[in-house]
Amino acid sequence: MRAMVYHGPGNVALTEVPDPEMTHEADAVVRVEATSICGTDLHILAGDVPTVRDGRILGHEAVGTVVDVGSAVRTMGPGDRVLVSSISACGSCRYCREAHYGQCLGGGGWILGRTYDGAQAEYVRVPFADTSTHRLPGGVDDEEALMLSELLPTGYEVGVLKAGVWPGDVVVVIGCGPVGLTAMMGARLFSPSHIIAIDRADSRLGAAKEFGADIMVNDATADPLPTVRSVTDGLGADVVIEAVGQPETFELAMRLGRPGARIANVGVHGRPAPLHLEDQWTRDITLTTGLVDTYSVPALLRLLASRQLDARKLVTHRFAFADFERAYDVFARSADTGALKVVLSP
Amino acid sequence: MRAMVYHGPGNVALTEVPDPEMTHEADAVVRVEATSICGTDLHILAGDVPTVRDGRILGHEAVGTVVDVGSAVRTMGPGDRVLVSSISACGSCRYCREAHYGQCLGGGGWILGRTYDGAQAEYVRVPFADTSTHRLPGGVDDEEALMLSELLPTGYEVGVLKAGVWPGDVVVVIGCGPVGLTAMMGARLFSPSHIIAIDRADSRLGAAKEFGADIMVNDATADPLPTVRSVTDGLGADVVIEAVGQPETFELAMRLGRPGARIANVGVHGRPAPLHLEDQWTRDITLTTGLVDTYSVPALLRLLASRQLDARKLVTHRFAFADFERAYDVFARSADTGALKVVLSP
Amino acid sequence: MRAMVYHGPGNVALTEVPDPEMTHEADAVVRVEATSICGTDLHILAGDVPTVRDGRILGHEAVGTVVDVGSAVRTMGPGDRVLVSSISACGSCRYCREAHYGQCLGGGGWILGRTYDGAQAEYVRVPFADTSTHRLPGGVDDEEALMLSELLPTGYEVGVLKAGVWPGDVVVVIGCGPVGLTAMMGARLFSPSHIIAIDRADSRLGAAKEFGADIMVNDATADPLPTVRSVTDGLGADVVIEAVGQPETFELAMRLGRPGARIANVGVHGRPAPLHLEDQWTRDITLTTGLVDTYSVPALLRLLASRQLDARKLVTHRFAFADFERAYDVFARSADTGALKVVLSP
Amino acid sequence: MRAMVYHGPGNVALTEVPDPEMTHEADAVVRVEATSICGTDLHILAGDVPTVRDGRILGHEAVGTVVDVGSAVRTMGPGDRVLVSSISACGSCRYCREAHYGQCLGGGGWILGRTYDGAQAEYVRVPFADTSTHRLPGGVDDEEALMLSELLPTGYEVGVLKAGVWPGDVVVVIGCGPVGLTAMMGARLFSPSHIIAIDRADSRLGAAKEFGADIMVNDATADPLPTVRSVTDGLGADVVIEAVGQPETFELAMRLGRPGARIANVGVHGRPAPLHLEDQWTRDITLTTGLVDTYSVPALLRLLASRQLDARKLVTHRFAFADFERAYDVFARSADTGALKVVLSP
Repeated sequence: MRAMVYHGPGNVALTEVPDPEMTHEADAVVRVEATSICGTDLHILAGDVPTVRDGRILGHEAVGTVVDVGSAVRTMGPGDRVLVSSISACGSCRYCREAHYGQCLGGGGWILGRTYDGAQAEYVRVPFADTSTHRLPGGVDDEEALMLSELLPTGYEVGVLKAGVWPGDVVVVIGCGPVGLTAMMGARLFSPSHIIAIDRADSRLGAAKEFGADIMVNDATADPLPTVRSVTDGLGADVVIEAVGQPETFELAMRLGRPGARIANVGVHGRPAPLHLEDQWTRDITLTTGLVDTYSVPALLRLLASRQLDARKLVTHRFAFADFERAYDVFARSADTGALKVVLSP
Repeated sequence: MRAMVYHGPGNVALTEVPDPEMTHEADAVVRVEATSICGTDLHILAGDVPTVRDGRILGHEAVGTVVDVGSAVRTMGPGDRVLVSSISACGSCRYCREAHYGQCLGGGGWILGRTYDGAQAEYVRVPFADTSTHRLPGGVDDEEALMLSELLPTGYEVGVLKAGVWPGDVVVVIGCGPVGLTAMMGARLFSPSHIIAIDRADSRLGAAKEFGADIMVNDATADPLPTVRSVTDGLGADVVIEAVGQPETFELAMRLGRPGARIANVGVHGRPAPLHLEDQWTRDITLTTGLVDTYSVPALLRLLASRQLDARKLVTHRFAFADFERAYDVFARSADTGALKVVLSP
Repeated sequence: MRAMVYHGPGNVALTEVPDPEMTHEADAVVRVEATSICGTDLHILAGDVPTVRDGRILGHEAVGTVVDVGSAVRTMGPGDRVLVSSISACGSCRYCREAHYGQCLGGGGWILGRTYDGAQAEYVRVPFADTSTHRLPGGVDDEEALMLSELLPTGYEVGVLKAGVWPGDVVVVIGCGPVGLTAMMGARLFSPSHIIAIDRADSRLGAAKEFGADIMVNDATADPLPTVRSVTDGLGADVVIEAVGQPETFELAMRLGRPGARIANVGVHGRPAPLHLEDQWTRDITLTTGLVDTYSVPALLRLLASRQLDARKLVTHRFAFADFERAYDVFARSADTGALKVVLSP
Repeated sequence: MRAMVYHGPGNVALTEVPDPEMTHEADAVVRVEATSICGTDLHILAGDVPTVRDGRILGHEAVGTVVDVGSAVRTMGPGDRVLVSSISACGSCRYCREAHYGQCLGGGGWILGRTYDGAQAEYVRVPFADTSTHRLPGGVDDEEALMLSELLPTGYEVGVLKAGVWPGDVVVVIGCGPVGLTAMMGARLFSPSHIIAIDRADSRLGAAKEFGADIMVNDATADPLPTVRSVTDGLGADVVIEAVGQPETFELAMRLGRPGARIANVGVHGRPAPLHLEDQWTRDITLTTGLVDTYSVPALLRLLASRQLDARKLVTHRFAFADFERAYDVFARSADTGALKVVLSP
């Protein structure tokens, strides 16, 4: 089959490789009908993820059809359409029993396209298939379901649900990349009074408006604090979601919250950030971090099926498998191309 | 001033009475600019509320302008526009400290128009003014604010919030009178996948559709259970809100929930209902009851001000004070008139 | 091997039967080193559980050593000491993903000793072994662990946790049989100010005192309400746990709660009970029901291992397997024998 | 009357001053029968709290008898024994309505002994008396009640409740001063499996043992991480409570938590601390900060009255008012004197 294979920093190529084989009774093999590229894949290509070794098939997002299952697999069989979660779950460790699959101690977590061969391929072997895939309900198409492999649950679980967005809240989202935008989509599900989007690129702020923000601030040119205060009786935001991953944006997030604010960090950080406890120790702040668990996928699928959520608008580009390398290029140059999510189909 | 005075069962009349006077340092007197009639007022007229005595001014819903405050009142003064809550709160008893104002032990609770003269008058004296009124934010008009005196918080707090409606849930609301409709409006704030409205009058089911229901079942002619099962993988509803108050509808509510369902009773009951513990003891049911507390009013005001919530559509009829008796008649004959909320202005 | 085999109402006998065999890759076979009899087994014997058919090995509580595992079992192997949960969990259905194993849709739930051969035997086959057993930590002995197969989690999960017992609460437990006593043990973990035990047998009230109650009321001779009011400023209890299963005790439970009370039903009911909604609709009651899920077992094991919880005092009688029929007799006559939990060992 | 008056950094003296007078209808004047010194008073003396001006009577902890009340005070009258909370609450602002009294926007919060004359005096005027004091139940003496003015609620609310300590948890408390010790007392109410106390002074670790810790680590001589791992299957603590207020101890707190840990900062910080988001962004951490609100006082009073909590052991020294200056000296030299709480009585 053809697959996107990692050959060291800067080098990923569409390559002919053997089809995957079942190695455990709980595995399933899925024929990939839609897959995508994630920002994490670019981190891998940059050489930032040393656990990924030469020869690894990349990718952890897929929708497809089951072609084979191990003898222990109970919930699906050949011919079933499934969403492959970016997070594999052993289902029985301490964390999996609490639905914190991202912290799985039993061999799961984020393993696809990292320590296991991934989903940017014509076929993918999925370990722990019963607890790492979701049967697709009728009326949900491949593309929108694919947004639930990782992207939408990330903004929703790590941003919206951890922050406890509530009707009437003023919600600030810092960073209007794909994850920030899904945080806005997810926040809208709880009817905040305002969503304030902050970014340094006007183009991304334009996208924010389409994804549910009603106030946009370019913090390259204006301090967002006065704007936040103007809609919060001078107090600050109820909720702040950090979706950039820089010390500066983290400090901004802490500064924009009111006393009692919930601050959810979704950004991927490479450095420490200063936490101004000399101010914050009195301010009743709740700060959360986290990896996506994908526990929200069943509810999100119901929202897709009932058309309460439009995940398709995250897809900006579509390519055939043969153009996979070009898709990487378009995605990597998102500042120019406006790419949010790039979908590959056979 | 003119006021609607109760003179025993079946007898309420617009009467000239003395203006209210301050009797406690924490009181405020409010000039009423909009008031309304509640189903409870009809219960009083029917003689069902023996604590209401001859000579009492009725009414517990008002929006208006403060004209006088006692020396202990800190948060408002003459000229301020306020929403008068149907629930007065002493602010310091055990229940008020937990925001369960409806259970106030310090002399509050539902007292306006019951044991205190009420708001169907040109002026109303409001006890515990600091904790029993809300300053109106800019951009919110009298009529929509008036819906927050009692009606909208009832459906929202006692129905939606107690039941814990969550994105993707299937929510059943039994009874499409004003309270049931506000439960639907409130449920929509949490983005359920489906709201199923049940009633015996097609006209009310039509209203339900406008207030957020997407599936309507007339249970005079069809058992709703198959419909509920058809959108819940055969399991039953995640949430059921009972907004009728009859043993039969309560039994129906219990029957429509899935294992693990949350059932919120909002209906006013006059008789016991059988609880089928022989079935339900294994089913992980959570059943709640309650009076409105109006603790949600600040959040609801923010939703009105930001136009996330349209409370005006609850108002079906408008009258001048001089026509108060006619307004009672229209409201009492809601089955014919389609009255949801009837607003009176000077 | 020898096993307790059901042969129709009133008839259970120690019988020589074939050893269990593995039938699925996710099974384990466990050599039983301690097992017990549950009140449910007496219901089966009374013919009340029609899903149990002639020839079934009874029992759903066991501690033992793994002797064989299927190829899909990952978390244990021969020689490991395990607690067998009374609730089997497929691990991947909607309910199992939310840790509501008692409602498992994937073939689990209470199946051992009901639709599968059970644990009152020298060996037991455990389906879904990874999610239906718990490895025993060091320092926990067989007997105390056995109390976690079902009994202690029932009082703790369905009573204490569903009711949300909190430091300083006044907790009423109605019924001082084994489940009521474990509700008291579990409630003590949250430091209520008072636990009030209610029963009609003074001997059981004596046991209640040993399990954490500090006020005992025999409701055959006294209405408990004045006692409850005397320690709650006249309001009623914060929490009431019903552990009897009769309409009268359920009505009593509802009557003893304060406005805002949490009432947890743990009792097994055979008939409907009247719910006095004409009083309760205003009282902010939360009523819960439920089957045990055993999700709390890992935490309870930590409490056993750290000696914060003494489960051994639940064991009143011990027998060898050869005396299994006598053990049933002692347990069935608990009113005379004072039996709480009867443990059988090879 | 005599009172401890602040006269600039380093200077507090027992001084004859006029008795306090009522200035608002919601005030009460309380004759102080027990008062105490808080670590914050030492910060004031060090000149660290610029809002405290020359001439201010210090102190925010008191128990006494009401001698006068304003006309708006409803819940107490002359002769009533009351606990004066360190936190005054207007009772009607956004934060007070949510029981976040420490963030009061209506003129309350920590004002006694800071911007209002305080409680280290024979009489103290208490603003917002209905919402800022608690009637003492029978059977609770002055000294133990005094521990609820601020100290015990701080450890309990800001440490234990914000961190969500739960039965079976492993709880680490860093810092064994008075607040750390009350965090241990409070944590015990929830039956953790282990409480691990960390400090650099063996004497304080000895105290920790008396307040509920079962493992003590002197982090001047040993890294606590291996100890924490040894009782948590190598994962790290479920809960960490930081009660020191230094960047180093904050970093230690973050390092000792398991993935999914709840970290509650109680320490008073004067400088920023580095937050290692490069590690923590994936670890599902919840970090909280906060001021005490004293919302837990009613529950804590019930626990004192029922002897479930022994607050008296926090009192290490007792003085008469005449020796107030010596009491400050003993408290300031707590490292030598072992002072936890110093109580002054007339």
